[in-house]
Amino acid sequence: MTEQDMVLTTRIRLARNFTSYPFPAKMSPDQKRALGTAVAQAVENANFGANRLKVISLESLKEWELFALIEKHLISPEFAEHPVGKTLICSEDHTISIMVCEEDHLRIQIILSGLQLQKAYELADKIDDLFESAIGYAFDPELGYLTACPTNLGTGLRASVMLHLPALEGQGALAGLSATISKLGLTIRGTYGEGSEVTGSVYQLSNQITLGISEQHAIQNLEGVVRQLMRQEEDMRKMLYSDHPQQIEDRVWRSYGVLQNARILSGKECDRCLSDLRLGLSLGILPTVTPDTLRTLADQTGAASICVAAGSLLQPEERDNRRAALCREILSK
Amino acid sequence: MTEQDMVLTTRIRLARNFTSYPFPAKMSPDQKRALGTAVAQAVENANFGANRLKVISLESLKEWELFALIEKHLISPEFAEHPVGKTLICSEDHTISIMVCEEDHLRIQIILSGLQLQKAYELADKIDDLFESAIGYAFDPELGYLTACPTNLGTGLRASVMLHLPALEGQGALAGLSATISKLGLTIRGTYGEGSEVTGSVYQLSNQITLGISEQHAIQNLEGVVRQLMRQEEDMRKMLYSDHPQQIEDRVWRSYGVLQNARILSGKECDRCLSDLRLGLSLGILPTVTPDTLRTLADQTGAASICVAAGSLLQPEERDNRRAALCREILSK
Repeated sequence: MTEQDMVLTTRIRLARNFTSYPFPAKMSPDQKRALGTAVAQAVENANFGANRLKVISLESLKEWELFALIEKHLISPEFAEHPVGKTLICSEDHTISIMVCEEDHLRIQIILSGLQLQKAYELADKIDDLFESAIGYAFDPELGYLTACPTNLGTGLRASVMLHLPALEGQGALAGLSATISKLGLTIRGTYGEGSEVTGSVYQLSNQITLGISEQHAIQNLEGVVRQLMRQEEDMRKMLYSDHPQQIEDRVWRSYGVLQNARILSGKECDRCLSDLRLGLSLGILPTVTPDTLRTLADQTGAASICVAAGSLLQPEERDNRRAALCREILSK
Repeated sequence: MTEQDMVLTTRIRLARNFTSYPFPAKMSPDQKRALGTAVAQAVENANFGANRLKVISLESLKEWELFALIEKHLISPEFAEHPVGKTLICSEDHTISIMVCEEDHLRIQIILSGLQLQKAYELADKIDDLFESAIGYAFDPELGYLTACPTNLGTGLRASVMLHLPALEGQGALAGLSATISKLGLTIRGTYGEGSEVTGSVYQLSNQITLGISEQHAIQNLEGVVRQLMRQEEDMRKMLYSDHPQQIEDRVWRSYGVLQNARILSGKECDRCLSDLRLGLSLGILPTVTPDTLRTLADQTGAASICVAAGSLLQPEERDNRRAALCREILSK
């Protein structure tokens, strides 16, 4: 079993504010637009390899395009709520996304696949330096980076990892682990953060503490707990499979059968089936499904992604039909 | 839609007793064996085309072999209960089965696929004549054939048809129809007769009246009602499919996906899936499944049939594994 069998993505987010602007809550739409332009200029000539950055005026997007950005974790629901004047700077491969005028002036975010906390932090840090020198941050030698909300004060760093934990979840082990995790200054939550539902056994594990702790310490602390959880999940998967091989294979193959045959498929059921496929892949049960196929399925079957592909806001029934057709198409390739 | 899409099998059963023997309830095992031999001799040289008859001593069979005969409707559960001294005469293709010393001396049974009441009756009648001339029946000019139970007195004929009625069942229309059917001297029951559960939406429709009615009249009455039910079922299927095409296709394809992928499959779920496949076939939804495949599936996936194939009495878990493997194998052909 590899890291990628249990860690879907790694995310680093930095909250930053500039000295020369009021906090976003106090800015007019025109001030926000002006800041968007200044931020875009600061990264205009930056080189992130093949990752070309696009500058997107949030108010130009359709409702479902905003939802799709939320679905892919590129923006927060709060950012999408009042789009007027806001700017998103986003790399074509979705690795880099910079929200201008969310709660803070900048939310610099890096998403990498698998467990790559250090690499994601380095990329965020590189972008951070660009803005620091171009515009100048609000920074207090004692408190660190000043932020709109005190929970981000200090490093302004939120590091998080998306974990696929079907075995621990199935065994009811997560409630107990959650308390321990909380004592370590971390939090484990639903797929879309605080208060969100867990879909397809995907959990978000992230640091809570930003004050009185270095970025490196926060990342190492998180990585340590991730590795611990991965070991426990791996052990549990192997134990379950060795104790109940038929049941596990039945569950995995039935989900494969649903994705291959359904004509109506809700997002919830699709997520559950994808979770079973991931589990099956990690246990060597599904010889014909590749990690690439899984990524494609996960990437294209979200409600908003389906609307974007269709170019219109679809009703749930129509989405469920298209989702089913999409899964059949992807799996038949 | 054809008759075979709604009528699985036609069955004719004649109850007969000989003058020269007491009723089976009063016979010793040796007397029963002697009658078995006499009956076997009477049909020894009979010619039923390719249908060679086998003479089976019931007490030589293993428990699961008896269950398999019940499962295929070749014998009654009552016949299997005390096998000592009893004889079964059965054609290789299972069209003809003659129980010697069930409740009556003879239960001559013909099973044909689809709706073939007249043809089945003619074959039963031909066999009936053989015994009549060879051994001599207990017959009263006024009452007709004498039987152990008065419910069979007269013609001794039970004609029945196995109907697949998923649409009428799904619409809850059968409760109302059942009362009407009863007024016509017929009864509609579960897959294995009185008090049995309905599996896979298969219903047994049969005549109840044997006294004061001719065989031809009984058969015509039954056939008339069958044709009426078929029309209603066909209309309902077409209406459902035209009103909810996605839902019907989803149901059919999902069941196909279960049969193709499950590793654990209960008899009940298998019957339900087969029912959906039958429905799909009749609506032209499943292009790759043939009626032959369906027949093979239905024929081999019963609990007792699986034990017979394995040559041993299997536990339910083992049966469910083998049933799933069998379905995958048959569908992959």
